[in-house]
Amino acid sequence: MAKFNNITIIGVGLIGGSIGLAAKKRRVAKEVTGVFRRKSTLKKALKFKAVDKAVMDIKEGVKDADLIVLAAPVYSIPKLASEAIRHAKKGALITDVGSTKVWIVKKLEGMVRSSGRIRFVGSHPMAGSEHAGVEFARADLLEGSPCIVTKTLKTDGPALKRIIGFWKALGSRVSVMTPERHDRAVAMISHLPHIVAFSLAGAAAPEDIVHAAEGFKDTTRIASSDPELWADIFLTNRRQIASAAADFKRYSEGLLRAVSKGDYKGTVRMLKKAKAKRDRCI
Amino acid sequence: MAKFNNITIIGVGLIGGSIGLAAKKRRVAKEVTGVFRRKSTLKKALKFKAVDKAVMDIKEGVKDADLIVLAAPVYSIPKLASEAIRHAKKGALITDVGSTKVWIVKKLEGMVRSSGRIRFVGSHPMAGSEHAGVEFARADLLEGSPCIVTKTLKTDGPALKRIIGFWKALGSRVSVMTPERHDRAVAMISHLPHIVAFSLAGAAAPEDIVHAAEGFKDTTRIASSDPELWADIFLTNRRQIASAAADFKRYSEGLLRAVSKGDYKGTVRMLKKAKAKRDRCI
Repeated sequence: MAKFNNITIIGVGLIGGSIGLAAKKRRVAKEVTGVFRRKSTLKKALKFKAVDKAVMDIKEGVKDADLIVLAAPVYSIPKLASEAIRHAKKGALITDVGSTKVWIVKKLEGMVRSSGRIRFVGSHPMAGSEHAGVEFARADLLEGSPCIVTKTLKTDGPALKRIIGFWKALGSRVSVMTPERHDRAVAMISHLPHIVAFSLAGAAAPEDIVHAAEGFKDTTRIASSDPELWADIFLTNRRQIASAAADFKRYSEGLLRAVSKGDYKGTVRMLKKAKAKRDRCI
Repeated sequence: MAKFNNITIIGVGLIGGSIGLAAKKRRVAKEVTGVFRRKSTLKKALKFKAVDKAVMDIKEGVKDADLIVLAAPVYSIPKLASEAIRHAKKGALITDVGSTKVWIVKKLEGMVRSSGRIRFVGSHPMAGSEHAGVEFARADLLEGSPCIVTKTLKTDGPALKRIIGFWKALGSRVSVMTPERHDRAVAMISHLPHIVAFSLAGAAAPEDIVHAAEGFKDTTRIASSDPELWADIFLTNRRQIASAAADFKRYSEGLLRAVSKGDYKGTVRMLKKAKAKRDRCI
């Protein structure tokens, strides 16, 4: 039995498209509607069968939705949410897929509270790649990937349960935490690695890059990510990113100091400590 | 026609083993001999057919070699080279696969000069992975990968030509440059990315790492590399690594400053510049 009659995805790119494909494949929804800003993306999404129904108008798109998924860049989420809430039916559930949570959850909790008819739970499916666009969407993108669902003092219990069930039905491994805890964790394991990857690529001379092998390519792969999308994320999680960057700086400067002093034992000790942590990643 | 009658590889791990497999498969040598320090590795190498003949004694291993390939960690190369040179036949060619070149080439050029019978050309096949050991060796590891061959005022022309031909015959894309230019380039495109990957993994809290997705995994993959192997590399290329780290620091601090100020345009500009460079990687 499908979990939802109608799911509406606002913003059908890599993540939104993959949610649509997975929701259809796994029969999580009877019908998946996509709301688009551009005609060209709408056509692509229908061609790739990422949604059953495609519209350009939010009002039309959300009116029958039991679940609305906001899958747009972080800065555009509040505006889209405000429109979606205005036109959603009573009792509809809203979630988003934004990579920062304190900034989004605070705004959207305020909105649903004043509407009184809609419930909101924040989400962050941690899947994706350096590619953007519905043409890279895959039904299995979320399978086995981590998804953080946020819980605050204002979170509605049954709504939280349904959102957890939604992501699990799509194949994600769900963790529940506060938006603050989320932003601190992702600053270190996602935002800072992006800052570092962009900086490595940015600092390298083009005449050196031609000799780059797999090590450089792996380490900088996410520097091919979408700049606007990531500027949104970085700017809405500044404080935690600064704090993660300070931790990184402390470790890297310690390591560089050991190297420059020719301290073999100290260098090996720091490398071993780092390797042990990395080896525990699945 | 085989390019060499006998090739001897001293140190048969991931790189040495892959050279052996490729040399046999592509008929670059009539016979490939491996010299081992440990009986257990010798057995593994024979099991994986990485070499035709396996010995534990350098003297025995190099006596018939036309080409000797030193494929051991950087710090052990001079000692192995010294022994190999003593027992090699007149006119034999020596190369190494060390990831730093100024330190190695200077020492080895001095050694062959005083021997008067052997020619040396430094190499750095930039293939490999975070895995170590002959069990990960593959005949196609070098295929299409960059290989830097060093040229100095002391380099013998015909020897250089033969070494270039050797790596090309194994499928590598060869570039020729001075050891200084090599060390500067790899400090930025290989050594610093390793420093950064080790530091990201080292700075991350274990309770955050459990939520890590592909971005973190890609960026820190090389932090699973062998600590001793990399300590050798870092400590023999300190000055260039410090200089590359300064360039990286300048870029990352500029980016973090734009983020912390909430400078959207400045952030996007820096991310776009970095992405454009990364997108040019093959």
